[in-house]
Amino acid sequence: MSELALLAEKADAADELAPVRSRFVLDDVVYLDGNSLGALPAVVPDRVADVVRRQWGELRIRSWEESGWWTAPERIGDRIAPLVGAAPGQIVVGDSTSVNVFKALVAAVRMAGEGRDEILVDASTFPTDGYIAESAARLTGRTLRAVTPAEVPSALSGRTAAVLLNHVDYRTGRLHDLPALTAAVHAAGALAVWDLCHSAGALPVGLDEHGVDLAVGCTYKYLNGGPGSPAYLYVRRELQPRFDSPLPGWNSHADPFGMSPSYAPAAGAPRGRVGTPDILSMLALEAALEVWDGVSVSAVRAKSLALTDFFLKCVAARTEPGRVEPVTPERHEERGSQIALRCADAGEVMKRLIARGVVGDFRHPDVLRFGFTPLYVSFRDVERAARVLGEVLA
Amino acid sequence: MSELALLAEKADAADELAPVRSRFVLDDVVYLDGNSLGALPAVVPDRVADVVRRQWGELRIRSWEESGWWTAPERIGDRIAPLVGAAPGQIVVGDSTSVNVFKALVAAVRMAGEGRDEILVDASTFPTDGYIAESAARLTGRTLRAVTPAEVPSALSGRTAAVLLNHVDYRTGRLHDLPALTAAVHAAGALAVWDLCHSAGALPVGLDEHGVDLAVGCTYKYLNGGPGSPAYLYVRRELQPRFDSPLPGWNSHADPFGMSPSYAPAAGAPRGRVGTPDILSMLALEAALEVWDGVSVSAVRAKSLALTDFFLKCVAARTEPGRVEPVTPERHEERGSQIALRCADAGEVMKRLIARGVVGDFRHPDVLRFGFTPLYVSFRDVERAARVLGEVLA
Repeated sequence: MSELALLAEKADAADELAPVRSRFVLDDVVYLDGNSLGALPAVVPDRVADVVRRQWGELRIRSWEESGWWTAPERIGDRIAPLVGAAPGQIVVGDSTSVNVFKALVAAVRMAGEGRDEILVDASTFPTDGYIAESAARLTGRTLRAVTPAEVPSALSGRTAAVLLNHVDYRTGRLHDLPALTAAVHAAGALAVWDLCHSAGALPVGLDEHGVDLAVGCTYKYLNGGPGSPAYLYVRRELQPRFDSPLPGWNSHADPFGMSPSYAPAAGAPRGRVGTPDILSMLALEAALEVWDGVSVSAVRAKSLALTDFFLKCVAARTEPGRVEPVTPERHEERGSQIALRCADAGEVMKRLIARGVVGDFRHPDVLRFGFTPLYVSFRDVERAARVLGEVLA
Repeated sequence: MSELALLAEKADAADELAPVRSRFVLDDVVYLDGNSLGALPAVVPDRVADVVRRQWGELRIRSWEESGWWTAPERIGDRIAPLVGAAPGQIVVGDSTSVNVFKALVAAVRMAGEGRDEILVDASTFPTDGYIAESAARLTGRTLRAVTPAEVPSALSGRTAAVLLNHVDYRTGRLHDLPALTAAVHAAGALAVWDLCHSAGALPVGLDEHGVDLAVGCTYKYLNGGPGSPAYLYVRRELQPRFDSPLPGWNSHADPFGMSPSYAPAAGAPRGRVGTPDILSMLALEAALEVWDGVSVSAVRAKSLALTDFFLKCVAARTEPGRVEPVTPERHEERGSQIALRCADAGEVMKRLIARGVVGDFRHPDVLRFGFTPLYVSFRDVERAARVLGEVLA
């Protein structure tokens, strides 16, 4: 057994999160694509079957009340809250991330007031955030300016209404400094909107602690909610009374079954709701969140860094110098829970890795992306992935 | 056996759709709330279990391609298309009805051009359409005017950009004249946006035939897609190149995996997509649509009218004159697939009906609402419902 394999074995033996792996349905594949679609939590299939057969099939319409369907968006929001450092009552689940970016950004611009006519958006953002930011700017009569997160402090001005940033860059895995950037945005009198897709469930976020104004995130990556599971919207409690949604659907009405022709927004997190929630996907997510019982985000973060450190070490040992180049920062303070490697023939390499049971993904034009979900990825997985990568690259 | 019960028996024996009932999971309840949440199609539970256990649990990320997840929104749109009289390539499934109303109305206003500054909305609409229309008007700088469908022809002018109408009124069950109203809207040079929530799957719609511009609808009523199953958006083929979405998420990009920072809209129906589709709910819907195999919408319409006629007849026979008053029009041309009865103590009456195994719903302040899904409601059901209603009211 190689030295790295021995190290992996030791690390697994000492890993306090190792038992959590059994809460997932896994096979002999090394699955390093949990930052795209999280693995299936073992509790989900039976729960979904119950939702379909009993709640829908037998109780039917009664389930809106008796099975808690109606209140699911805010109930599940409260289940996500501790994972992102939020007190209850500030998160609502529903719609896609894109739709929630739209709600958050338009609402932020409205809160900033008429005098502020510019929106800043992370130039390296996942594309949808940029597209939606452009639409929000167009519809609210603001201008949109794309800047890198590093440029944000100098780009801020009295014109800035809101800034839309990604906590972790989807491509490079770079972790941005949420506390410092939020403080800079606030110092300029603007609102900070964060996209947590690549951080929630992988590292501490501290929404309340750092005074984030609004945030959105998906639930199908590190939160393992299933394909296209609904996203969430966080609105800081003090801002909720001023949250003026551009999508004021009947589910966000103060008295939805009053069927009033005039709109009156609900108080609190439900103000972020829109239409009828997709119950099957939503309750699958609720079940999936049970894997977090007894798990601390700080333990997850510690393991995440250990996994990515170990992967970088193994890759360095197993590949020719210069064959791949890490794009993800070395410094822990700047690293999310993935490692991106630049590699000229990345598309072809990833195909061969997948054929050999190591699943990551390829990001155009030349990035191999490996996500490390601390709840189910082991150090042995990491060693094997780097070993197979070395063989494929050789 | 009463005369009405005999009639019911005869009608069931002659009903060509009677065998379709076995495609649903039903019990001894008379379920007349399929216009709120359709009953469970028998094929759905196993299909959903496969999506969860195999497609997500085993194939994981590969399912986006191998299990056809990525193309589901337009594939399922094409499955809905014949039910609403649309040729393929014009419908995309995803998001809630409210979100689709927003897309459709903003896009319609943009197509109408700068010179047209007024949106007309059905004053009797399901509330969410009115709330969203107000937001669309606010964000596009138009004014919103609520008028009844009957007032639309006289309210139209050179100022009118778009008109948002309901095909069937959710409360009264009144069917509006889609061909005539669409023609009137077109004659004024405006765009017609129809909400099909209470008509699709219950009666012929004829979107293509009548030149409807845009349409939206939910799938959890007469299409039996399950609680909160995704809605759909129809954009007439000739208008697709001009469809300018206010929610241009990455799923609507011409090259979504190119991850370009600049937006370029996809051609065709996918232009109406936004973010990652909720696969569990979406594929449950796809399975649910199989109950339509071999079923013609005209047969459904014929049975629907026979059921509602029979219900009115039974109610008249079983209740004291004046105790309840039908709100739904007598004329077939003006009737959807539900019967609404005004009844002073409707809330209490509906509770007692439900306790006795007849499930309809109550609409504030004084309406008993009974939906008739021709795929699984029998004439015996109708006779029993009216009989129990008579007993409860006595």
